[in-house]
Amino acid sequence: MLTTVSEQKIFGGTQGVYRHQAKATQCSMEFSLFTPPQAKDGPVPTIWYLSGLTCTQDNATTKAGFQRMAAELGLMIICPDTSPRGEGVPDDPEGVYDFGLGAGFYLNATVAPYSTHYQMESYITTELPALIADHFPADVTKQGIMGHSMGGHGALTLWRKNPDTYQSISAFAPIMHPSQCPWGQKALMGYLGPDQGQWANYDICRLLEERGPIAHCTPLIDQGTADNFLDDQLMPDHFETVCKKIGQPYILRRQIGYDHSYYFMATFIEDHLKHHNNILNNG
Amino acid sequence: MLTTVSEQKIFGGTQGVYRHQAKATQCSMEFSLFTPPQAKDGPVPTIWYLSGLTCTQDNATTKAGFQRMAAELGLMIICPDTSPRGEGVPDDPEGVYDFGLGAGFYLNATVAPYSTHYQMESYITTELPALIADHFPADVTKQGIMGHSMGGHGALTLWRKNPDTYQSISAFAPIMHPSQCPWGQKALMGYLGPDQGQWANYDICRLLEERGPIAHCTPLIDQGTADNFLDDQLMPDHFETVCKKIGQPYILRRQIGYDHSYYFMATFIEDHLKHHNNILNNG
Repeated sequence: MLTTVSEQKIFGGTQGVYRHQAKATQCSMEFSLFTPPQAKDGPVPTIWYLSGLTCTQDNATTKAGFQRMAAELGLMIICPDTSPRGEGVPDDPEGVYDFGLGAGFYLNATVAPYSTHYQMESYITTELPALIADHFPADVTKQGIMGHSMGGHGALTLWRKNPDTYQSISAFAPIMHPSQCPWGQKALMGYLGPDQGQWANYDICRLLEERGPIAHCTPLIDQGTADNFLDDQLMPDHFETVCKKIGQPYILRRQIGYDHSYYFMATFIEDHLKHHNNILNNG
Repeated sequence: MLTTVSEQKIFGGTQGVYRHQAKATQCSMEFSLFTPPQAKDGPVPTIWYLSGLTCTQDNATTKAGFQRMAAELGLMIICPDTSPRGEGVPDDPEGVYDFGLGAGFYLNATVAPYSTHYQMESYITTELPALIADHFPADVTKQGIMGHSMGGHGALTLWRKNPDTYQSISAFAPIMHPSQCPWGQKALMGYLGPDQGQWANYDICRLLEERGPIAHCTPLIDQGTADNFLDDQLMPDHFETVCKKIGQPYILRRQIGYDHSYYFMATFIEDHLKHHNNILNNG
């Protein structure tokens, strides 16, 4: 059962917001979905866009400016919410922005009280794709995934664990080594407990080291040099070191003077969508 | 005295928000200003973007997506706030969105208590341009003006009264005949009182009829056909009738299926900026 919250025309396509009762997260979830004009002629490739801390599906949808190029290339863009929400969904005990609501970290929590609702990995990789395949003209054989900050972490880890599902991957200023940064350590401890073996499953550096490279797929990553979170939280150098060590191809662009905001993403979203399109439509 | 609230890099230029104590409105005012990369080589043409009801300078700045094309063409974009704000500034008596705060209608109020602060016409046409000329690389001999809804009304009326200042003009879904629509009648009565002679000064249909056409300048206007305010508040047909009657050249494009939102503006902002640029840089 899918409810249409809104549908609006933009760049010849349709920007929608939809709501459904999710089994994985046991709550009502909203997501946004851009349908490009090409979809009237048949299924189109889909790009998953995972947002960062504090965001809902709306932030990227209204501020990243992805619709122009998605309409030109014929890409469906899906923006899920960043956590479960609603009555009974536990938040950070002190209401801090970096845990709980708006901070689901795209994992399946194992620690109470979070484990009941915080099953974002299952929601993003299994439940929502099935719902979308049923209701929208999505070509499920051609999927890419991307994200920003916490969502970049989500995109990279979900990609590495599901390389056949996501054939293309990119990220803006992703959290690259959550086991070693304050945001990541708080989230992994809070949702998973102290078992470092579980943490490895949600850390792109450790996933690549333990499982090896995806040699046929090159992540595109943009990182602003004026990003306030660069050294303490994001740690692209760690990712680069691991990729070099294991032979994972990658593109890491350090963009001079750009910060952590949607202005940074808006500037380079065209490059990212072309990166995905080159693989999904021509690969 | 100008305070920098924020400056962020986007598309190679700088998106800033600035604050100053305004004489015209007797309060602290914020505005946003995009400086394109070309400004490092000398002054650039400036476009004034006037926003609609409920907006501040931030809405268009974060959601209209103008920076990409402004950076490519080398245009400075200035987004003022839509009303005076702060302690002592009177709002709508019942706090309704269409009058008072966020609804200055780009006029100089003559009725107490609004006349003290609601002097937006003087602020936009005199005080703010002087401030910007002092602090930014603006080519004041090349200025265009545009706006959305209430801001489209503002852009059209200020253009008609100052055709030498604003050499180019465009609007998205402007309020075209405020003397005859509910939003306009409430604002004109509230800010100016019942004197219809004063109302004529803030109504583009009446200004054109009474003062005649600007034959060398063609307004570009986009209007979505799915706009909820089209018939009751915007009345583009009235504008079209007057233009035809007096010989005012104009371009009025009815965009099928688009609504009143920033998605509509984002879709066509490139066309508008090119329209201004063709006149300002080549005219």
